[in-house]
Amino acid sequence: MDQATDSGADPLQSAGSSATEHGPKVISVLGATGSVGDSSLDIISSSPDRYRVGAVTANGNVEKLAQIAIETKAGFAAVADEQCLDALKDALSGTGIAVGAGEAGLAEAAAWPADMVVGAIVGAAGIRPTMAALEAGNQVALANKEALVCAGDLVMDAARRLGKPILPVDSEHSAIFQIFDDANRDEIEDVTITASGGPFRTWAQGDIEKATPEQALNHPNWSMGAKVTIDSASLMNKGLEVIEAHHLYDMPLEKLKVIVHPQSIIHGLVTYSDGSMLAHLGAADMRIPVAHCLAWPDRAPANTRRISLVEIAQLTFEAPDMARFPCLGLALEALRVGGNLPNIMNAANEVAVAAFLDHQLPFGGIARMVEAVMDRFVQLGEVGPVGSVDAVLATDAAARCVADEVRANLV
Amino acid sequence: MDQATDSGADPLQSAGSSATEHGPKVISVLGATGSVGDSSLDIISSSPDRYRVGAVTANGNVEKLAQIAIETKAGFAAVADEQCLDALKDALSGTGIAVGAGEAGLAEAAAWPADMVVGAIVGAAGIRPTMAALEAGNQVALANKEALVCAGDLVMDAARRLGKPILPVDSEHSAIFQIFDDANRDEIEDVTITASGGPFRTWAQGDIEKATPEQALNHPNWSMGAKVTIDSASLMNKGLEVIEAHHLYDMPLEKLKVIVHPQSIIHGLVTYSDGSMLAHLGAADMRIPVAHCLAWPDRAPANTRRISLVEIAQLTFEAPDMARFPCLGLALEALRVGGNLPNIMNAANEVAVAAFLDHQLPFGGIARMVEAVMDRFVQLGEVGPVGSVDAVLATDAAARCVADEVRANLV
Repeated sequence: MDQATDSGADPLQSAGSSATEHGPKVISVLGATGSVGDSSLDIISSSPDRYRVGAVTANGNVEKLAQIAIETKAGFAAVADEQCLDALKDALSGTGIAVGAGEAGLAEAAAWPADMVVGAIVGAAGIRPTMAALEAGNQVALANKEALVCAGDLVMDAARRLGKPILPVDSEHSAIFQIFDDANRDEIEDVTITASGGPFRTWAQGDIEKATPEQALNHPNWSMGAKVTIDSASLMNKGLEVIEAHHLYDMPLEKLKVIVHPQSIIHGLVTYSDGSMLAHLGAADMRIPVAHCLAWPDRAPANTRRISLVEIAQLTFEAPDMARFPCLGLALEALRVGGNLPNIMNAANEVAVAAFLDHQLPFGGIARMVEAVMDRFVQLGEVGPVGSVDAVLATDAAARCVADEVRANLV
Repeated sequence: MDQATDSGADPLQSAGSSATEHGPKVISVLGATGSVGDSSLDIISSSPDRYRVGAVTANGNVEKLAQIAIETKAGFAAVADEQCLDALKDALSGTGIAVGAGEAGLAEAAAWPADMVVGAIVGAAGIRPTMAALEAGNQVALANKEALVCAGDLVMDAARRLGKPILPVDSEHSAIFQIFDDANRDEIEDVTITASGGPFRTWAQGDIEKATPEQALNHPNWSMGAKVTIDSASLMNKGLEVIEAHHLYDMPLEKLKVIVHPQSIIHGLVTYSDGSMLAHLGAADMRIPVAHCLAWPDRAPANTRRISLVEIAQLTFEAPDMARFPCLGLALEALRVGGNLPNIMNAANEVAVAAFLDHQLPFGGIARMVEAVMDRFVQLGEVGPVGSVDAVLATDAAARCVADEVRANLV
């Protein structure tokens, strides 16, 4: 434990921090300076009678974090990078806002008394804070894919113990959440998530192989961070989402479908055994799923983007091409095998995407690298059950080492 | 009361008729020989462990009614046409199936002990049996448009007193039912029902004016009775459905939208104040909404037609053209004014459609005739609140008289 907190207040005693039944809901935002953090704070700040901020965290952007904490009158602010603690203390001195840093700081933010914790940290760094929030009794609205892809069984078990569902912030999973009839789950024939198809949807295989980062970052519909945008171009993002859906909805692989829908208007569909198919539609605006989470189980007005089907005029659908987008098949294979293989695959993909963005790997090399790392672990007999968060993080680190080796051989 | 029943059994004592908590649900089908009756009996007969038949009725098709009653082991069969009572008695003699006829026979069928009554009688004749079912404590799955268009306030009041919602059998209203979050009804921004646009969707106004019954009966997606197929061609059907939706969901006119969607795959949409839009999709198969009603609040497997969005490939949307399809505007105007005007409009439309099918009126004359009848009642100051089923039926009769006069002048 690299404890480095200086909260300066007992959160349970802090007058303004405890979640009340009738006052505004207290929302903590982990990863407050990122894209989902922006969306969350936009929804929160536009409904001050409905929401107020508990704790906020950032990776290392102290200036933005401090500004957010002050503007939202947060009770606690933590920065993941311990080197930034002093800067954060300086920026918040005299405000009465408690501060923390490092893993312990993030855990304290996650456990800060709140009605809901938005888990919007990017990458494996989000796993421990997600678990900390659940273990502290806080409902989690989850945007952090890795918490489910790498530690889905652990996270879902913790949510079940808490007795409060994980509320998905991803647009596709929020879509499914809104049309998934848990009382009739045995009558669910399949759950379909849609993929825009990304910028290379119509490209020939040879051109995709040689695509540049600039081309891959040119997503047709969504404005997102670089990592998820590259994953959208490779369809790995959809594979990760299938794994997330498996955990969120306890659905087996054979009931999980992906269809390509270039307009990104329908985000998810659930087919029932009577022939009814329910769907969720909406603009490509992350504030829509965020607004759904924050108000759940109610709904509340939000100034989100709206769509007109008459203006859109047509929605199209096609099957995903597993040959041109092999990352999707790799993710489905990782889910089929299960255990720690999705975790291994995810780590390999993160290393590969970073290498691609750094012009160290061709776009087509991402899938080859992921496949090689997965194969290596299978051959070594190191694919098995996920026992603990520590084991998840150890596997993540091991997979990254293997990925670096593989990359050296691939390049 | 034209009582003409001969039930020969006390339904409350009849061993096989009372609805039980754990055995198959008892379903009565009013209008069992029609298209919705066929769909209902198909779903019922394919799940004998789940459903069995209580009472069945028909207008005058004794042969088919008797066959249905015998095959489904119904407890009671009634024919609306009293002249057919003897034939029905003969056909069912020795079967132990009780029989009835006329208004009292239909009322007895509606009140027969059942878990659910499918109200699939066509026209104003369905209003009294619908009320009788509700007043006897039977939940109603309603396909009969007139019960809501003409007597919506009375029917919905009776359902509220019963404490069981009306389950809509129409595909569009079933769609809305499945995505309408009653707990968050204040957060519903609008309810959209889709229209295929019918066979004249792309026709010029002058060609629609002169369309023949054969052309109007050529519906692109749905196989239905003649009256509703003509109403689909004029978009009056969509206008009637907006009025039904107003009653079923207690939504004001300004929150009710119609969009044209030629593929008839999305049947209804509900937009929430957070920007989420939920939709119901499915094949053009009436057994899908019927299956939903019969199993509600559960779902149950049904061998209905399925869709593949990848095979369908595209869904398109356009605004309805109120100039080429004036019946839609007339229906919305009737709803705006309210009271008995929808009832008057509906009666005028029934007379007009019959005249059109009989080659006595051009297609364009339907809207002119409906408008003329509505205007006449407005001018006479005879538009006002709906007080009772008797008043509804009296208004219906009066409007038909005026419609006949108007037709004589129009032709």
